[in-house]
Amino acid sequence: MQKKLDRFKQLIIEITDLGRAEALLGWDQQVYMPRGGAEDRGNVLETVAGLSHKMFTSKEMGDLLTELLPYADTLEPDSDDACLIKRSAHNYEKSTKVPTEWVAEYARITTLSQVAWEEAKTEDKFEIFRPHLERVIDLRKAYADFFKPYDHIYDPLLDDFEPGMKTSEVQSIFDALRPKQVELLKEIAAKPVIDDSFLHIPYDEQGQWDFGVDVITRFGYDWNRGRQDKAMHPFTTSFGIDDVRITTRFDPERAASALFSTMHEAGHAMYEQGVAKSLRRYPLADGASMAVHESRSRMWENMVGRSKPFWQFFYPMLVKQFPQQLANISQEQFYRGINKVEPSLIRVEADEATYNLHIMLRLELEIALLEGSLQVGDLPQVWNQKMGEYLGVVPPSDREGVLQDVHWSGGMMGYFPTYALGNLVSAQLWEKIRQDIPNLDGQISRGKFDELLAWLRTNIHQHGAKFKPQDLVKRVTGSTIQADSYMRYLRGKYSEIYNL
Amino acid sequence: MQKKLDRFKQLIIEITDLGRAEALLGWDQQVYMPRGGAEDRGNVLETVAGLSHKMFTSKEMGDLLTELLPYADTLEPDSDDACLIKRSAHNYEKSTKVPTEWVAEYARITTLSQVAWEEAKTEDKFEIFRPHLERVIDLRKAYADFFKPYDHIYDPLLDDFEPGMKTSEVQSIFDALRPKQVELLKEIAAKPVIDDSFLHIPYDEQGQWDFGVDVITRFGYDWNRGRQDKAMHPFTTSFGIDDVRITTRFDPERAASALFSTMHEAGHAMYEQGVAKSLRRYPLADGASMAVHESRSRMWENMVGRSKPFWQFFYPMLVKQFPQQLANISQEQFYRGINKVEPSLIRVEADEATYNLHIMLRLELEIALLEGSLQVGDLPQVWNQKMGEYLGVVPPSDREGVLQDVHWSGGMMGYFPTYALGNLVSAQLWEKIRQDIPNLDGQISRGKFDELLAWLRTNIHQHGAKFKPQDLVKRVTGSTIQADSYMRYLRGKYSEIYNL
Repeated sequence: MQKKLDRFKQLIIEITDLGRAEALLGWDQQVYMPRGGAEDRGNVLETVAGLSHKMFTSKEMGDLLTELLPYADTLEPDSDDACLIKRSAHNYEKSTKVPTEWVAEYARITTLSQVAWEEAKTEDKFEIFRPHLERVIDLRKAYADFFKPYDHIYDPLLDDFEPGMKTSEVQSIFDALRPKQVELLKEIAAKPVIDDSFLHIPYDEQGQWDFGVDVITRFGYDWNRGRQDKAMHPFTTSFGIDDVRITTRFDPERAASALFSTMHEAGHAMYEQGVAKSLRRYPLADGASMAVHESRSRMWENMVGRSKPFWQFFYPMLVKQFPQQLANISQEQFYRGINKVEPSLIRVEADEATYNLHIMLRLELEIALLEGSLQVGDLPQVWNQKMGEYLGVVPPSDREGVLQDVHWSGGMMGYFPTYALGNLVSAQLWEKIRQDIPNLDGQISRGKFDELLAWLRTNIHQHGAKFKPQDLVKRVTGSTIQADSYMRYLRGKYSEIYNL
Repeated sequence: MQKKLDRFKQLIIEITDLGRAEALLGWDQQVYMPRGGAEDRGNVLETVAGLSHKMFTSKEMGDLLTELLPYADTLEPDSDDACLIKRSAHNYEKSTKVPTEWVAEYARITTLSQVAWEEAKTEDKFEIFRPHLERVIDLRKAYADFFKPYDHIYDPLLDDFEPGMKTSEVQSIFDALRPKQVELLKEIAAKPVIDDSFLHIPYDEQGQWDFGVDVITRFGYDWNRGRQDKAMHPFTTSFGIDDVRITTRFDPERAASALFSTMHEAGHAMYEQGVAKSLRRYPLADGASMAVHESRSRMWENMVGRSKPFWQFFYPMLVKQFPQQLANISQEQFYRGINKVEPSLIRVEADEATYNLHIMLRLELEIALLEGSLQVGDLPQVWNQKMGEYLGVVPPSDREGVLQDVHWSGGMMGYFPTYALGNLVSAQLWEKIRQDIPNLDGQISRGKFDELLAWLRTNIHQHGAKFKPQDLVKRVTGSTIQADSYMRYLRGKYSEIYNL
């Protein structure tokens, strides 16, 4: 059996390494590739992804997993080997159930669909995108059907991002959350509007860059095993646990955007930088799921980065960096400004109190589209109606409504809920951390994050993708994903800010 | 047969794409990778190289080539398909004759040997490097022996860089060249020394960068299909014909170094940017050989970049960029300064009149080591003796002598002669170009390079690696590689500068 295990690991290592080459090809494409290189790059990416898929879905891999899966049950369940075998078997089953023809068709359709979406968004004409989205939905329905029987057609899609999680779980979590979020928002809306105009004046780019770098260096982002570059969209990517990179972008008139985005990406990156060295060459050197990953970034961005103790330490430094902009703004004014709640049309610009509502709306629509209870042609109207219902604002155009996100054009259904789940997990972990580190606020107000990071390394980071998200969250907090912690967090924070 | 050809091409495309991923991994390693990423990167590179080697040396590839080789003879000899099959068959034969054990041992030994060389160079102790070099030589002898029978033990090594070329050809070319180069150098040495002190004062980096960018943009380097970054060592790399990148480095007190290096690398890059689109996905999207590649870079750097007409156009611009440094230096003084001949100890700093002598010395020593007529222990002494003989200078230390180059520590024997051959080819092509474009000097003196680049595209670049180097040079110039053109070029240039 040792021989089979060695051979299995050898194959997994090769596939993981190909994935890392692919990640670098993708990073470079978004960061440094000259425009003309697109065709060559597309070809190379297709080849590398194809080879890696072929290796993973090979008969040899299937035979090895068939023999190794019962063996894994004889191992210590938390051992690296047991986790690696089980997760690989799960992924193998998913990969092999999907026919190659579907994969090719999906790649073709989503490529066209993304072009159509861009045009539709630019022209503000949903009709351009409609027929493409219909085809994407059909393909996604067919995808789900490869995994029949399922409890819900959305389950196989969700599982791609949250291994083991069921649609019914997400729905019951969100059902508990929605009315409370809507209620909180109504209470806030009744209060005077916060003035954050000082955030919407020019801040020079180098100053933004330097301040952000200083912050995440103090967080514990390891520059010897990472770097930051500029890109159109901020993201984190890794080419191994010792090379985890982030990107950022700057808008001179929205300084807060780059700063919080830098903290956000550093949160993702510190997660992967903290994976145990024993997992170095395996796919387990990753986050447990999208939601757990998002909880890592959201925690640093919001619980830490938008907190009072944080700015107690950093605000004097920020004022020193930007005296013209902030000399007359008090720390309290600044704190209130970066925490201003304002129902808005665009998800990526939403504040902590409204963000999840954008997500819940999307999840409901995705599910209705897949169930067939909603037709693509009716989507813009239902979108606008739900926006009014949940957020109290109605998009004046589809560009600012149903066409705003790239996800559906690329077939990424099942992804959206992970953003909101990430918020919930971040609050659950935060409650536990505050119990375990009683003087956390004091540490943060002195710019000290080492105990916090050490806690995260021990409880979350080191495990990489060994455990399923629900298992990991339960193991650490005693409960699976739930909405109460997040609502307690929001209530506590905004009661003080808005005097609710 | 069409089916076999298609399958063969499919495999070659996949292998080529893996090679491009490998190239990007290498570029990033030298340009942007954080220090900590080295271990992960080494692993990924090993995997990708290993997969690509496995695919290329597979039985399927062998069977396909066996069937396709006779078929290639029925095709138009210059057709893409015929060239691709023949070159692949040649490489396949070379790859499969070398046992995997040798490849592994070679990788292991040269890794150790490079570490030892670095230490030996730092400490100026050849003895640290000696036992490692002995092992490298033994491995290289064994490598050559896999290709028995050969005319000369050096042939299989040379063939890795100059496909089809024989040691005896190189020796007879160099034998004709050596006395003439030595004689020219003696004549120059008898003349007054040129003052180039104005090149050895600080020039700011951004100014150097901007000027270099302007020059190569005018040459025709396509920034839409390339980019320049900083690296420890200047190099050119490509990830497809539409993404060919260069790097440069700056020494504030050796401004000429970065400038000519930028032109040099742009010469390499424009070669690969000019390969025919039909070769896009094949290994033929490369240079014909190292020598032909080097001829492309040397021509732009020397024949163009160190010429009088070039500076007629560019010198006023350079003075404008660096008024403090150059306001009191005439164009003639500058031209003489950048063409100063000075026998020196270090190859990479050598001028046009002495460079080839450094190479010939190295080739003779490589051959003697492989033939066994020279022992590694005697190498430093023989090195110093030959330096005195050819260049009239004797290294005061091994660091500035036999230990200066990285090549041997990495097992790169057979590579050095391509530098000198590149110089020779550049002059042969230059003579032909001057015949075909009679008013070339006039064009260059007006900053116009489009006709020159078009000529190169038509006659050299578009063919990529379709033809063997000697065949290509003969096809274009009517003669295989010879020394006379280069000597005519040197004589013409230096007679005027040194009043010989």
